[in-house]
Amino acid sequence: MTLGTIFLSETVGTAVLILLGTGVVANVALTKTKGFNGGTLMVTFGWAFAVFAGVTVSYSSGAHLNPAVSLAQLILGNITFVQFCIYVLGQFLGAIIGATLCWLAYRDHFDQEPEPAAKLGVFSTGPAIRNYAWNLITEIIGTFVLVFSIIAFTNGKTPAALGALPVAFIVLVIGVSLGGPTGYAINPARDLGPRIAHAFLPIKGKGSSDWSYAWVPVVGPLVGGALAALLSFPLLPVVH
Amino acid sequence: MTLGTIFLSETVGTAVLILLGTGVVANVALTKTKGFNGGTLMVTFGWAFAVFAGVTVSYSSGAHLNPAVSLAQLILGNITFVQFCIYVLGQFLGAIIGATLCWLAYRDHFDQEPEPAAKLGVFSTGPAIRNYAWNLITEIIGTFVLVFSIIAFTNGKTPAALGALPVAFIVLVIGVSLGGPTGYAINPARDLGPRIAHAFLPIKGKGSSDWSYAWVPVVGPLVGGALAALLSFPLLPVVH
Amino acid sequence: MTLGTIFLSETVGTAVLILLGTGVVANVALTKTKGFNGGTLMVTFGWAFAVFAGVTVSYSSGAHLNPAVSLAQLILGNITFVQFCIYVLGQFLGAIIGATLCWLAYRDHFDQEPEPAAKLGVFSTGPAIRNYAWNLITEIIGTFVLVFSIIAFTNGKTPAALGALPVAFIVLVIGVSLGGPTGYAINPARDLGPRIAHAFLPIKGKGSSDWSYAWVPVVGPLVGGALAALLSFPLLPVVH
Amino acid sequence: MTLGTIFLSETVGTAVLILLGTGVVANVALTKTKGFNGGTLMVTFGWAFAVFAGVTVSYSSGAHLNPAVSLAQLILGNITFVQFCIYVLGQFLGAIIGATLCWLAYRDHFDQEPEPAAKLGVFSTGPAIRNYAWNLITEIIGTFVLVFSIIAFTNGKTPAALGALPVAFIVLVIGVSLGGPTGYAINPARDLGPRIAHAFLPIKGKGSSDWSYAWVPVVGPLVGGALAALLSFPLLPVVH
Repeated sequence: MTLGTIFLSETVGTAVLILLGTGVVANVALTKTKGFNGGTLMVTFGWAFAVFAGVTVSYSSGAHLNPAVSLAQLILGNITFVQFCIYVLGQFLGAIIGATLCWLAYRDHFDQEPEPAAKLGVFSTGPAIRNYAWNLITEIIGTFVLVFSIIAFTNGKTPAALGALPVAFIVLVIGVSLGGPTGYAINPARDLGPRIAHAFLPIKGKGSSDWSYAWVPVVGPLVGGALAALLSFPLLPVVH
Repeated sequence: MTLGTIFLSETVGTAVLILLGTGVVANVALTKTKGFNGGTLMVTFGWAFAVFAGVTVSYSSGAHLNPAVSLAQLILGNITFVQFCIYVLGQFLGAIIGATLCWLAYRDHFDQEPEPAAKLGVFSTGPAIRNYAWNLITEIIGTFVLVFSIIAFTNGKTPAALGALPVAFIVLVIGVSLGGPTGYAINPARDLGPRIAHAFLPIKGKGSSDWSYAWVPVVGPLVGGALAALLSFPLLPVVH
Repeated sequence: MTLGTIFLSETVGTAVLILLGTGVVANVALTKTKGFNGGTLMVTFGWAFAVFAGVTVSYSSGAHLNPAVSLAQLILGNITFVQFCIYVLGQFLGAIIGATLCWLAYRDHFDQEPEPAAKLGVFSTGPAIRNYAWNLITEIIGTFVLVFSIIAFTNGKTPAALGALPVAFIVLVIGVSLGGPTGYAINPARDLGPRIAHAFLPIKGKGSSDWSYAWVPVVGPLVGGALAALLSFPLLPVVH
Repeated sequence: MTLGTIFLSETVGTAVLILLGTGVVANVALTKTKGFNGGTLMVTFGWAFAVFAGVTVSYSSGAHLNPAVSLAQLILGNITFVQFCIYVLGQFLGAIIGATLCWLAYRDHFDQEPEPAAKLGVFSTGPAIRNYAWNLITEIIGTFVLVFSIIAFTNGKTPAALGALPVAFIVLVIGVSLGGPTGYAINPARDLGPRIAHAFLPIKGKGSSDWSYAWVPVVGPLVGGALAALLSFPLLPVVH
């Protein structure tokens, strides 16, 4: 697997993931959409099968699509540090492209939406009750479940070996079950990439990008992913 | 694969797809149905598994069921131009048959429905905010995701090689995530076929077939499908 | 496959199918249940995976669980007339057992439910707009899709060869898409079996068993299943 | 399979199951969550795919995750009594750990929730209409369907042999179809483990742990699981 393949594959896969993931939030949150107020289950299905679609177009790099997954693979010794950096670069670039495409697909609905918070909510997560310490713990727990499940699935091989469907269902259940407090970023690229897009795109009537919260959905998932990788060593008889 | 098999298989498959797809809209939109106001998630599940059912009865032709998919296969060199024409003919005939069967299954509910727009909405898509340029872009993006995923899945083979389930999930996520602005036609036969049926069927109290919008869900999906095929060449290391 | 195996397997499978299928209606329709007013999508998921569960415990007989499926298999020459009779006997016995178990599981909720129509609705289907001819057509179309899909899936082998999941998804989409007018019996045993149970069980405050409608969800599915089998001969290149 | 592997694997698997299962109830029931009032279908999807995630990290022990399943395996002669005890110990320890993690993930939402009954509802089940005899029967029927399906699936092999997905769908349909009266514990560890956690954790403003009901979701599932195992002997031609 060349660095070019990794970069291209992760960029394309993460772009598809973020286009579809931010798209479902746009559909339930922005004014005059056909899916307005579609409910939490619809949003969680959207993100789950956004991951499904992203994985299907990103097989050649193992479909990490998430720096927390790549960090775990680095700790497990499955990729080198240089590869890790290329994975993460592709993921962030893809996330920014995906969020931009979502904005284009919902252009008029963004323009006619009066509420700035609804616009930011399409791009990035925010806490239901702002409390950095507990928000961080929620993101750590959610990402731990994601990455630990992936490691268990793949028996130490790269994530894509498991097919796209099981990951989609794991993301679905994390969404319905652990998304209540923080909206389950569980992926630094998923949150920070679109937040960067929100900051530089000429979105009509946009408000703050809420940078004070931005570190939580970056640090939490990285800690959760690292913990999952580290705990998989003593739990080897279980997960391998 | 003979031209007769292609024609018969695509006709049957698209008829099943459109019967079930328009059926779920009838169920949530028409008066006195048991699924009235069933919500966006129900509609998107309906269309997703309408595709699933259509693919299951259309394996022998590769289950394109969509001129945008057939156009991509033509560009990729997997079918000839004559085959392409037969595919599209079967798809349009099937779509008209399917829409007619839906009207028969919901006959009394059409008759008792007072709102002409609800009746047309069963057959064809329409934009939430009418703006031809942006509506076109939304349809291009949605169809690009559909066809690009199918190409990635099938590694250049015909779509049916992947089984019906992954396509169903891709259609599900496109529906919940990119269906907000235009109702995700993402298939010229899906939209124009039933619109033709709406125009000629003796539906009680029907209104306009909204021909001014009819070109958008034809041109958009064809552009999106062609782009997906063309982009798959430079992205070969990713999708093949 | 002995006649005893057929009978036992179809009885057990149909009992599980009907227990879970009528159970989901009880959960959304009867007073004080936790799923009260859970919505159409929940009901259709319940019936879909009721079929899934029924098929999983009925593999040894091919999991027909439906006289319309057995009739199609008889027409296709896959089973004899004697076997057909044993299939149907097991299906009706299982349906009565399943409906009785549902009544026991929801005993207090039946007792405290004031509305007789809600009680009958747990057991059997009824039309949204009563019109025998059109109700029959709806049931014919729905069952045709079911049985034709199964024949296509199994390429002429017995239905269970396809696994339980695809059938579940076909039943899901028939429910959301064609269930609007009549509640999709699409199975004579599913409707008449529980109706018989409704008639003889000592259900507190039960009303009429609506025998005047009872023939529609028996005749419609049988016609639809037979048509699917007959049409599969000229459509052999498609479905086999 | 060593006793240590059984213990570790069941502890980890049940912890993941209970974290995600109780998590979805927290998300729909506690104040200010993003999934508040998400509906019954969301809760049943949460528990279904909580089982999916638990099974994926517990393959090495066969992923029982439920004393009723282990009891059935003991009766079927697939495990010894000593192994049975280790299974159950791991399951209860895992359930307590999972419930504790859920409390941590939703810490602020527990603190700000005014209603003690909502807090207990996250941890343990309770009846819609309190009637011990009928509640017991409902739990017996629900667990019978679960364990009987698993035995049928696995043809007498350990449950994990079937993969995680079919079990998830069986749990989904039991939830939507038989969860109405008692909230479908169908697993002594799932109910008693979190109830123990509820009793000892310093949850702000918690009320009673409702110990008078606690025996029902322990005894019912054990009886249902045992019945399923015992009935699988005469029904061998069906389920094996």
